[in-house]
Amino acid sequence: MIKIVVDAFGGDKSPYVNVEGAIKALNEIADLEIIFTGDSTILNEELKKYKYDERRVSIVHAPDIITCDEIPTIALKTKKESSLVKAYDLVKNNEDIGGLVSTGSTGAILTGSVLKTRRLPGVIRPAFCPILPTMNHSVVGVCDSGANASCTVDNLVQFALMGSLYMEKAYGKKNPRVALLNIGTEEEKGDELRKETYQRLKNMKEINFVGNMESRDLLSGKYDLVVCDGFAGNVLIKSTEGTALELLKLLKKSFMKGIKNKLGALLLKKEIYSIKDFMDYNNYGGGVMLGVNKTIIKGHGSSKTNAIYNCVKQAYTLEKNKLISAIGEAIKPKED
Amino acid sequence: MIKIVVDAFGGDKSPYVNVEGAIKALNEIADLEIIFTGDSTILNEELKKYKYDERRVSIVHAPDIITCDEIPTIALKTKKESSLVKAYDLVKNNEDIGGLVSTGSTGAILTGSVLKTRRLPGVIRPAFCPILPTMNHSVVGVCDSGANASCTVDNLVQFALMGSLYMEKAYGKKNPRVALLNIGTEEEKGDELRKETYQRLKNMKEINFVGNMESRDLLSGKYDLVVCDGFAGNVLIKSTEGTALELLKLLKKSFMKGIKNKLGALLLKKEIYSIKDFMDYNNYGGGVMLGVNKTIIKGHGSSKTNAIYNCVKQAYTLEKNKLISAIGEAIKPKED
Repeated sequence: MIKIVVDAFGGDKSPYVNVEGAIKALNEIADLEIIFTGDSTILNEELKKYKYDERRVSIVHAPDIITCDEIPTIALKTKKESSLVKAYDLVKNNEDIGGLVSTGSTGAILTGSVLKTRRLPGVIRPAFCPILPTMNHSVVGVCDSGANASCTVDNLVQFALMGSLYMEKAYGKKNPRVALLNIGTEEEKGDELRKETYQRLKNMKEINFVGNMESRDLLSGKYDLVVCDGFAGNVLIKSTEGTALELLKLLKKSFMKGIKNKLGALLLKKEIYSIKDFMDYNNYGGGVMLGVNKTIIKGHGSSKTNAIYNCVKQAYTLEKNKLISAIGEAIKPKED
Repeated sequence: MIKIVVDAFGGDKSPYVNVEGAIKALNEIADLEIIFTGDSTILNEELKKYKYDERRVSIVHAPDIITCDEIPTIALKTKKESSLVKAYDLVKNNEDIGGLVSTGSTGAILTGSVLKTRRLPGVIRPAFCPILPTMNHSVVGVCDSGANASCTVDNLVQFALMGSLYMEKAYGKKNPRVALLNIGTEEEKGDELRKETYQRLKNMKEINFVGNMESRDLLSGKYDLVVCDGFAGNVLIKSTEGTALELLKLLKKSFMKGIKNKLGALLLKKEIYSIKDFMDYNNYGGGVMLGVNKTIIKGHGSSKTNAIYNCVKQAYTLEKNKLISAIGEAIKPKED
């Protein structure tokens, strides 16, 4: 049995979508057990809506919620009755619980993973690795994407190793193509951090390093994992999402102008939806914290049912494929 | 009379679009003089296609071309007969020539601006500032965007000052809204570089600092200038352009599938073109090198006629509005 905690509060549409999405995953996967954290009265009411194997679902009462406006370190310390802190406590104190899924405050989830879980031996800094869809109907991971605003060469080398294993275990990519985010594709490009990292990655036998990647090629499908410091990764992810969103808004607006446009848009409805769908994070899992001893998945704050469903399945898959022990094995300090 | 050198070779469609675009600008602006650099036989043939005031056009013969595959420093030193080196030499050796426009190798143009022009007194590092269109039909500048992969607080402070003056002089923006690129909008976000820069910008009376900007908001129209190190700026610009391009490709592809889609696309043709147009760099000027004593404009390598036309007009406007002396005045070391 694989046990996953689902923080039922914190996202824009919580707890409705959290419960619905998690139960959907539960009903598909026979050896999955879900523990919800959150207000038990509300959760019990919510659960009445669904049919499911009751032996595999439990609730841990947590009446409080950490919001996005709160300072993560303070909120984690003072809001001991919040759904996120309770979720982390469960994960921390129970060896048989594999991990958690939360759509709450990014800052609190990332900080929590540092305070409430343990780094794997040898891991210098855990990294946050979200994924984006690519043009060839696959996904690309970006590691790190905001957990470490400034990084050393050793950090980036570990991100490459952990991210590569993640793309393999989570998405079945064999020999994932690992690229270094840089301002040009040539070997000598970038600052000292990039130049030195390039040489280190080039000589690593454990990964399939394919060279530098320019940010414009993120969605091209040519890469499976992009390695970068958390500052650049955050800029990369958010500008890609932001541009797609702004363009879709522009499209939508223009399609509503006059009868002719509306008719055209009607004819293209399916296609327009499929493009919207393509960029929709709800169809992919969440970002994962790599380098800690538990599976921590952070879903988008505006997650819908399908996003939660995918996040829970993702957590299950990572547990099933033993990502954490694979990372532990790859990174553990060598004995002399 | 304002004299601008146009490097007629180097872009994908040179010299045809370079000549056509520059002549179009010349025919609109009575006090503009153009000096083309490039193969004079080809250029003379090309110029025969147009009607223009011949007294305001001249050619400096330069039979060689610097390509994008060459190492900038070496190419600039060895290819003395190239259209770009000749252009820089003209700018360097003639006080009455205001600047140059080139669509050649980005590396060679940026390196050339350092080697062939002089930094203004007090400027620590010149910066490259391209612009992007925004959703409210204006533009936003990104400074620096690749000239300086690693930066100090003092660098970023100067970029803010120079970029703000640029957005004012080039695009008539009064009191431009200057933002710092960061991984969150809160004051305490980011690494030490960002935190310290935030405090410095906040206390500068010369600019209208509006706080941190997340990369997703670049096109929103809420900002006139974004300040960042060249690494992050490069990632920002290229991922924004790359995402827009990939989405438009996806759109185009799906609109060609089947009769129904084709009909829908036909009805929406005007709208789809206007969105394509909106993201088309040809409709905006090029990027400008800020902090040197000449106006150096770098147009996109795939520039069409309209892009060159806009770049030449941009160079003219900056000269007319005396951007360089404004920057010189703002940055010059204070006498005690």
